[in-house]
Amino acid sequence: MLRTYSLAEIAERFALRLAGRPGVAVNPGQAVSGVATLPSASAGEVSFFANVAYRKQLQQTCAAAVILKQSAVDDCPVPCLVADNPYLAYARITALFDAAPRPQPGIHPSAIIDTSATVSPSASIGPHCVIAADALIEEDVVLNAGCFVGEGTVVGTRSYLHARVTLYHGVTLGEDVVIHSGAVIGADGFGFAPDFGPGGGGWCKIHQLGGVRVGNRVEIGANSCIDRGALDDTVIGDGVIIDNLVQIAHNVKIGDNTAIAACTGIAGSTEIGSHCTIAGAVGIVGHLKIADRVHITAKSLVTGSIAEAGSYSSGTALSPTAAWRRNAVRFSQLDGLFQRVRALEGNRPES
Amino acid sequence: MLRTYSLAEIAERFALRLAGRPGVAVNPGQAVSGVATLPSASAGEVSFFANVAYRKQLQQTCAAAVILKQSAVDDCPVPCLVADNPYLAYARITALFDAAPRPQPGIHPSAIIDTSATVSPSASIGPHCVIAADALIEEDVVLNAGCFVGEGTVVGTRSYLHARVTLYHGVTLGEDVVIHSGAVIGADGFGFAPDFGPGGGGWCKIHQLGGVRVGNRVEIGANSCIDRGALDDTVIGDGVIIDNLVQIAHNVKIGDNTAIAACTGIAGSTEIGSHCTIAGAVGIVGHLKIADRVHITAKSLVTGSIAEAGSYSSGTALSPTAAWRRNAVRFSQLDGLFQRVRALEGNRPES
Amino acid sequence: MLRTYSLAEIAERFALRLAGRPGVAVNPGQAVSGVATLPSASAGEVSFFANVAYRKQLQQTCAAAVILKQSAVDDCPVPCLVADNPYLAYARITALFDAAPRPQPGIHPSAIIDTSATVSPSASIGPHCVIAADALIEEDVVLNAGCFVGEGTVVGTRSYLHARVTLYHGVTLGEDVVIHSGAVIGADGFGFAPDFGPGGGGWCKIHQLGGVRVGNRVEIGANSCIDRGALDDTVIGDGVIIDNLVQIAHNVKIGDNTAIAACTGIAGSTEIGSHCTIAGAVGIVGHLKIADRVHITAKSLVTGSIAEAGSYSSGTALSPTAAWRRNAVRFSQLDGLFQRVRALEGNRPES
Repeated sequence: MLRTYSLAEIAERFALRLAGRPGVAVNPGQAVSGVATLPSASAGEVSFFANVAYRKQLQQTCAAAVILKQSAVDDCPVPCLVADNPYLAYARITALFDAAPRPQPGIHPSAIIDTSATVSPSASIGPHCVIAADALIEEDVVLNAGCFVGEGTVVGTRSYLHARVTLYHGVTLGEDVVIHSGAVIGADGFGFAPDFGPGGGGWCKIHQLGGVRVGNRVEIGANSCIDRGALDDTVIGDGVIIDNLVQIAHNVKIGDNTAIAACTGIAGSTEIGSHCTIAGAVGIVGHLKIADRVHITAKSLVTGSIAEAGSYSSGTALSPTAAWRRNAVRFSQLDGLFQRVRALEGNRPES
Repeated sequence: MLRTYSLAEIAERFALRLAGRPGVAVNPGQAVSGVATLPSASAGEVSFFANVAYRKQLQQTCAAAVILKQSAVDDCPVPCLVADNPYLAYARITALFDAAPRPQPGIHPSAIIDTSATVSPSASIGPHCVIAADALIEEDVVLNAGCFVGEGTVVGTRSYLHARVTLYHGVTLGEDVVIHSGAVIGADGFGFAPDFGPGGGGWCKIHQLGGVRVGNRVEIGANSCIDRGALDDTVIGDGVIIDNLVQIAHNVKIGDNTAIAACTGIAGSTEIGSHCTIAGAVGIVGHLKIADRVHITAKSLVTGSIAEAGSYSSGTALSPTAAWRRNAVRFSQLDGLFQRVRALEGNRPES
Repeated sequence: MLRTYSLAEIAERFALRLAGRPGVAVNPGQAVSGVATLPSASAGEVSFFANVAYRKQLQQTCAAAVILKQSAVDDCPVPCLVADNPYLAYARITALFDAAPRPQPGIHPSAIIDTSATVSPSASIGPHCVIAADALIEEDVVLNAGCFVGEGTVVGTRSYLHARVTLYHGVTLGEDVVIHSGAVIGADGFGFAPDFGPGGGGWCKIHQLGGVRVGNRVEIGANSCIDRGALDDTVIGDGVIIDNLVQIAHNVKIGDNTAIAACTGIAGSTEIGSHCTIAGAVGIVGHLKIADRVHITAKSLVTGSIAEAGSYSSGTALSPTAAWRRNAVRFSQLDGLFQRVRALEGNRPES
């Protein structure tokens, strides 16, 4: 069972100010057992208010206290935990109430560990894990059930691999890396040379001789893939966060603190800057350079390098299908329309 | 080996009428060992006719019998199993001939089961499964090889998990749920608060405190992901069917009987109605509400809520690449073209 | 440790000509320990020059030798390995320096193998593999840790399954097939008949009675899915290469030597020709026929059959989001604009 915290403890631990508008009784000893949304929070849970769209929910909440800015105190019918950045304070407080089990140090007897591998005594190695030759598992690492760590691969201090993560050989994870189930790091990049001439053998595999280097404080989502490099390594910078079902191809480099949402694919050798935010289902073709602080909106396709920070998009808006069909046909006639308009304007057609 | 069924048995079991056009000899005792397409069915297999595009194939089939509507009997050179809904009758009959192995009840000795977990004696727990503390495996459940069931997770009666499914802690599956290999249910939602000010630590993880609730008669495809909720649960309604490589983010709610095809991604907190059909590779951004009985065509992006039933689309039609390039460039000049046409029409430019 | 090779050995083994421009000393006995890019290659590594964009890198390389065409010898400051096709020669040479561990033949004691399965003595079966009844594992196959091979499934000679591959029952792999971690072959196709009338049970599962047949020399990427057929088999031709996170639905047929990049999805019963190249994140709807030698550019949607070889595309170009929004709105008014231009041209509106 998780313990409870008093409002006073929470305020002190996260440097928040416990307050209340006139008439609200503030009990610093009130026990808190969790975090909840404004409408669902009970009298034993705290909530947060970080988006003015939810002001009405704030005004009706029954929470033990609400994390909010000073300017919202008067709208709050219950005690307040006043923060400069309520969303960040909320994020930090969630750590208190995470019921995810924390495995004990030690090696489960069903794990198979090569005698040449090094496993820190403070690491936790779950059932049916396999750790190959020369691998290194550093302090306080958790490998949940069924993880595979390939030859010579390094898992840095305090990294946490959920069940059934696969790390191929020659992968290096930094410290405090979190990887979710089903992710595959270090599979072969998609490299083949065509050999279809006389006597040719078809696609000739280019053996992928590089590895993958993952920085510190990286999180990688479920069933995502990061391929090993062809010659040099694929590189994920510090503080990068990657959602589920993301594909990162060989020799991609991702700059520090970039965020990549689900279902996005980045093709080979592309370099993404730092502090970028790539929305879901984006495609980025290979061999591009994307500057720092670029935002790409959902489902866009990036086919050229981007030199300037800013937000970029492609695609069309959603319509009822019948109307969309008429317009989509017209798209294929668009260049012709430009010529017709130019003719109407009395100019000769554009080249 | 699967057993065979006579045509009479099949007719009775599925309430079909065994018949034939004049001159076709109908032998109710004819043994049937499987189902096949019209052109490939042998004299020991039944087939079905549910799409008029295949009338010529019907006229030439050698099947033991064909499941079809009364109106098609005269086109059929072999015995008929007359149905109001031949496609549905075909679907039901396939269950007779499924050669997929059915594991016996019992726990494989290589499975690792926490002493506080409850496993029904009628359940089948395959090799190398791991079942964590306080999990509950109900009657007639099958966990094929290498499944992971997290702490406190519930797998409802008659649910069937194919090999290597991962359920995190705090997941609840209803009855008759089928999950295919590699699916991951309950991984952390992609929630982080930016903390990039002075002294900041970068992306601050929002611990994902909710769970996942999956209804009854749900099917989830291979390598699909359904994330746990941030505070409340992610909820999948009864009778929902989800294809492979689908991403369902935290706090999404999917209404009953909605179907979602492969490679689709649904971002956080979006609510999808019931009886929707989402085609493949669709993207739906977060915090939207989609009404009941909405159909989204393949690869569309949904960026706003949809209040009305109907079919919706985005994107452009496919063209030869050279022509497409000319038109795609013009897309970026489209607003300007509207202004030019308006000027030609003698009006001032639109705002 | 990998061995080294002299330049003379490499030249002989791959039928290359060892040469140098005037003034370059060529030492046939020079030891080579690896392959690297032009800028990073050390004096003990070979590199290659296959793209004129990198001519400056060639002129400054410190490699032991560079694989290149005769026409580039004069630009190379170090010894040359002259090839008709330098990229192909490079691909072949990478095989010498692949440090990926090669497991020994034999069955790990933690593997669970049904007594009715057949495993060649030359095969290597890794820890925690599960091989079901009547499966057949042929000569020189490698199953890395945690693979699952279903009932009656065949893994052909020299095939290599990386850790945690899942093959359902009734799958047949040819010779020299490589499958990366997390791939799932033979899961159920997404087939359901609607049964929403009075007394109906919702989506009625169509049991997927077919299997999957994979040809020779096929490579399948990490976390990709190939579904089993509904009645007939899903078929992957010889020499097909498939990247990560690809979805291939039931009854798809892929012709020989076709290449499919990451995140692409192909819907049910579509037939793709041979020697096609499908870029990343493409969607292809069901029941189409795509001719041989078709190229589809990244993120395109294919909604109709393609009868002619060539390159095809859909989508729009990337723009800054603010400009894109204006144009995307106009897309929904496009058909109307065509009518307006036609009116300006003095014609009556098009139907």
